[in-house]
Parts: sequence; structure tokens; C-alpha cells
Amino acid sequence: MSVKEFSFELIAQDDKARLGTILTPRGLIDTPTFMPVGTQGTVKGVLTDNLIKTGTQVILGNTYHLLLRPGVKVLNNFKGLHNFMNWQRPILTDSGGYQIMSLSKFNKIDKKVGAIFNSHLDGKKIILSPEKSIQVQKSINSDIIMVLDECPKMTTNKKILSNAIDVSTNWAKRSKIEFGNDKSKALFGIAQGGLYKDLRIESIQKLIEIDFNGYAMGGLAVGEKKIDMLKILNETTDYLPKNKPRYLMGVGTPSDILGAVNEGIDMFDCVMPTRAGRTGLAFTWAGKINLKNSKYQNDTSPLDDKCEVGNLNKYSKSYLQHLIKSNEMLASMLISLHNLYFYQQFMREIRKNIKNNTFRIFFKKYINFFD
Amino acid sequence: MSVKEFSFELIAQDDKARLGTILTPRGLIDTPTFMPVGTQGTVKGVLTDNLIKTGTQVILGNTYHLLLRPGVKVLNNFKGLHNFMNWQRPILTDSGGYQIMSLSKFNKIDKKVGAIFNSHLDGKKIILSPEKSIQVQKSINSDIIMVLDECPKMTTNKKILSNAIDVSTNWAKRSKIEFGNDKSKALFGIAQGGLYKDLRIESIQKLIEIDFNGYAMGGLAVGEKKIDMLKILNETTDYLPKNKPRYLMGVGTPSDILGAVNEGIDMFDCVMPTRAGRTGLAFTWAGKINLKNSKYQNDTSPLDDKCEVGNLNKYSKSYLQHLIKSNEMLASMLISLHNLYFYQQFMREIRKNIKNNTFRIFFKKYINFFD
Repeated sequence: MSVKEFSFELIAQDDKARLGTILTPRGLIDTPTFMPVGTQGTVKGVLTDNLIKTGTQVILGNTYHLLLRPGVKVLNNFKGLHNFMNWQRPILTDSGGYQIMSLSKFNKIDKKVGAIFNSHLDGKKIILSPEKSIQVQKSINSDIIMVLDECPKMTTNKKILSNAIDVSTNWAKRSKIEFGNDKSKALFGIAQGGLYKDLRIESIQKLIEIDFNGYAMGGLAVGEKKIDMLKILNETTDYLPKNKPRYLMGVGTPSDILGAVNEGIDMFDCVMPTRAGRTGLAFTWAGKINLKNSKYQNDTSPLDDKCEVGNLNKYSKSYLQHLIKSNEMLASMLISLHNLYFYQQFMREIRKNIKNNTFRIFFKKYINFFD
Repeated sequence: MSVKEFSFELIAQDDKARLGTILTPRGLIDTPTFMPVGTQGTVKGVLTDNLIKTGTQVILGNTYHLLLRPGVKVLNNFKGLHNFMNWQRPILTDSGGYQIMSLSKFNKIDKKVGAIFNSHLDGKKIILSPEKSIQVQKSINSDIIMVLDECPKMTTNKKILSNAIDVSTNWAKRSKIEFGNDKSKALFGIAQGGLYKDLRIESIQKLIEIDFNGYAMGGLAVGEKKIDMLKILNETTDYLPKNKPRYLMGVGTPSDILGAVNEGIDMFDCVMPTRAGRTGLAFTWAGKINLKNSKYQNDTSPLDDKCEVGNLNKYSKSYLQHLIKSNEMLASMLISLHNLYFYQQFMREIRKNIKNNTFRIFFKKYINFFD
């Protein structure tokens, strides 16, 4: 099925958990969906043909990183990131806001100008305005573009959070104007407000006034407890439009994702499957497995005996431990691929259970399984 | 075609260059052949299904490394290295002699006992006798087993070289006895003698008396000039049996390989394609390419626009440079895979040109192309 415009269809609901489809000219996305993170134009250690085999339908690219390297000129040469990295399915890009806080030699936020910072690579001063962020994301040829927001570090200071909403709302408006009227792409707003219900509802309502193709919850998964994150979702997702996709940024473990799906969230991204993979940590239906543990030295069983992606069912825990101990990059490659496969399998199970109205049973079984 | 016994068939000859087939119960090997090196039970950064797609028919495993880790007990659990690493085609293993010299806290050579050394991993004292080396290679379930030899560092000292022949001949005899009469596998002798014609012929003749399934030239590619290596091959390969495969250990660049094929060598192994791949160096029909060079920053062309293995023709030089600069492991993965594909393609061209009696033309074009 080939479409020309971005759209979202809500197919079914099991309590608050939602089953849907995002349609884009580059392919459809079944929701709830998990987006592997390809920060620098690659999902670390995974070939794109294997990524497709995991069932991945959309990946995330980081505007901040791609702006610094390879830069807009190179991206324009390739007409965007898809051709550059050999990934022709949809790409969502963040706006750069989060990385400016977390990675750069941060300088300052100027509501009128934008975020002013120094590159973490060479110290060069860069100004990222809401308009510039959209322009860069257009150079990336991103299918789902995020507005530039101010994402404060975890705080309970209402003044800081309120001010971030003020700045973010202003930037969201300017992002919308810069984005224009390209129906083949989507523009998502990002709500702030920390863990305060009143602030978050205020932020959501201001974004709805501007009108976006989807809405993200920002400023969560920044260090707060899982129970607090799920509580604020519980208190506020009902204020989001039912007919638009909802995206919780930077989340999380399979249990975190499950908890947020239970509150009505449709989209997720996280570095966890690949980052854990590089440290020898595997997610499986038997729980989290630390492959460095000596008990796996003679374990001839694979992580998942049914997984034929990349021949993963041919590699034993014993072999994976050997690769880790030997500092072989194949360890990161295989375990990252396994974890991505597991995450996508977990999302398929979530979707199946929503469809069958059995989500409650699945939820109870796995809500704390991966903590 | 499934066979039960190891055998070698010489199919054609173009001057001294030989076209042949090695038959093994695990599959055939077209010669001249290049064996990628899987030191620690993995060809670094390459998934085995992609390795097969490069046309690789046999890989090399290192007995020294595998003895230390994962060790014989684990290998026995898997009935050998093939199952452990998910590679069901033939495996050749070296004897450990070379690594004992180059890697371990070397202790001493005792002709009667074996090589005595301390592990480079934990300093543990290990004695590798000729018998033990064969036993370990049998635990690996290697298809082509090498005798334990004493491989001296590059030297012009005839006494050292002569003594190495004495020790190596004794160990070769003992290796043959320990190997026994398993016709499904092959045992290769290793000639020493440095760059001295008389010594090398002496070593070869002593090995022929013992009678092996194949013969290797050891103690070359240890730092001597290419011209000197090719000269000693020119002077001595005629003394090797015509009806047995000939293996030049640890060689080399495509040009080195070509030069040795021209002297009648059939088998090669080298870490070069993968090691170069990890440093951003690619072998192509246009020569060696250093992908770090800034001139490739905007180069949208792939390394080989015809190579569909791992979608390599979808990745531009610009993207590969971006990955290298970004310290992404995908750079090593893609360039290593490309280099292995190129090497195997180069071997296919060598074989085609021997078959067509056009080897001389191919030789002249590429003999210094990759220096």
C-alpha cells in the first residue's frame, strides 16, 4: 500500500492501550511501535538488512549529531539520511533540544534566538533556532519531524518548568510555521511540565491549539522513578487528541514501554537494546540475562531458539560469553541484534494482546519483569 | 558433491600457477584459495552468513588462542569450532607455533618436550607439545591440521634456521604419529629454512619423507622483502609434490598472493582484509583506498558498485568516512566485509585467468598494484 500523505488510524483500544497504524509515503508503522536509535546515521553494530528482519518499521535519527557530522551539505548531497545510511523506511528525527542539554558545552537558551551552544566535537559555537532545527530535519528528509523544545534537566522547580513551557510553546509555533504544509511529512509537538499535572496539561493544551500531526511527552525518562513517570502519564494522556499518535521520548525497558502503552502511548525510542547489547546484557522471555556471568560458560543454548534473524538461534550463550571475554565486536553485533529482535517481538505481542483484548493479562505478567 | 575423504586435484596449470580443488567432507575449496582469519572463533566484525556470501570456502582458526580461550573443554562440548562459531564449512587451524613466538611470554623450546610458554592472558605456564597441538586441533575438529613447528623470527643466522629445521622435523614426525589415520582430515607439514635455498630444500625433503596431505611454507612473511620472499619460493616450490596442496602461511596483500600463485602456491591466509578494514583501508580494483582521506567526504560512489553482498553497493565512500570519523563499529563491519569480498573476487579472477591461460596478463597488471 503506497500513500502520499502522513496519517494515523486508531484501530482498537483495550482500556487505555491503543492499537493503531501510522501511514507514511515510506511505509506503514504498526503502533505501539519501538524505534531503534540511529544517533549518527547507524543503529550501532547492526546492518540495515538485519534491522528490517527484526521487524523494525521506523528508526530515530538525532538532529544534533547529524548537524555536527556529517553536516547539512553532505546530507543534501544524498537528498537526506535514507540514502546516506541505506534505510528506506520511515525516519523520525528529534529536534536536537535534548542533546543540547545533555551533550554540548551548553551555552544558553534565548527564547527569541534559540539554543546557543558549543559543539561537543570541536567547541564551535552553534545557534540552533526552531527554524534551523526544522531546516536541518528537512535536509535529513525526516518523515516525522519534532519541534525544537527546551528540555530542562529533572527538577521539581515549577518556575523552571513553567518557563520551559513558555519557551517551548513559542518555539513550537515557530517550528510549525517553518515546517509549512508538507503533507507527506509529520510535525510533532513536545509537551513539557515535568511531573506536575497542571503544568503538563497546560503544555498539552497550548500545543493542541497550534495543531500537530502527533504529540510527544518530553522531559520524562530523565531520571525520575518509573512509578512517577507512569503516574503523570496516567493523569495527562487523556488530554491528548485520540486521533493523533502519542510518543514517549527516550523510553525504555520493555516493562517501561508496557507501562506507558497501558496509559495510551503509541511510540517509543531508546538506546537500551543496543547499549545493553554492547555490555553483554540480553533481554529475553526468561528475563534479563547478563552473559558475562560464569554460569553461561558451558551453556550451549541460544538466547532464543526460534530466532532465525542473522542465524541468532545458532549462537549459544557460551559462544556469546567467549566473544565478550575476547573483546570481539561480534559480541556487540549479535547481542544488539538479538535485543532489537526481542524488543520488536515484545511490541508484536503487545499489539496482539491489545487486538485480542488480552492486554491486561500480558501487562500483569511483564510490568515489572524487566526492572 | 559429498565426499568422505580429504583429497586434492590439480586441474590446470599456467606456467607454474596452479588451478585445483581440495575436497573435504565439509565442502570443496577451489584453489588458489584465500582463507580469512578467525583467530578467536570469529572473523572480526563479519557475520558468518555474509562470509559465505563473499565466496569464502575455508577459514583459519588459531590453535594458540582457542587453547587459551574458550579452551578444550568448551570446544569439546560443541564437538568443535564449527558448531561453536556457526561455520559449517572447512576450517584450517595453525599449530600454535607462530603465536607462541609472537604473542606469549615465550619461555623456551625444548625439542623433547615442546614449546614452553606463559599465556599472554593470565601468565599461566603452558606446555604445547607436538602431540598436544594435534589433540587441541582435533578438539577444534579442524579439517586441515598443521604440525607444530618452530618458527624463528626473521634471521640470516644459518645455525638458528638449521636448528629450527631439526626441531620442526622431529615435531612433524611426532605430529604425524599423533594425527593417526583419519582420512576425513588432512595433516600439513611446515617447511622452514628462512631465505636459504639449501636449508628450505632440506626441510621440504625431510617432510616429504614423512608424507603429508599438504605442505606449507613457514617462516616467511615475517618481515623480509616481497622480492626475497618470491625469490625463495621460485627456487624451492619445484621440490614440493605436484599432487599435494601448497600453503604459504600469513600472506598477504593481493599482489603478494599473486606473486606466490605465480610460483605455484595454492593456499593463503592473512588478517589483512579485516585488519585494514578496521583502519579504514579498502582494497578495490582502483587500488588501495584510504577512506579517511578528506577527498571522499562528498563521494557518493560505493567501493564496488556491483557488490550486492551485505548491500555493500548501497554504502558510499562519504558514508563510510562518516562512520570512521564517528567511531562507529559499522565502519569496521562494512569495510572488512568489502575487503573480504574483494579478496575472494581477486582469487576468482586468479583462478579464471589460470583456467583461460591468461594468467601472465593478469599477473603483469596486478603484481605491484597493491604494494
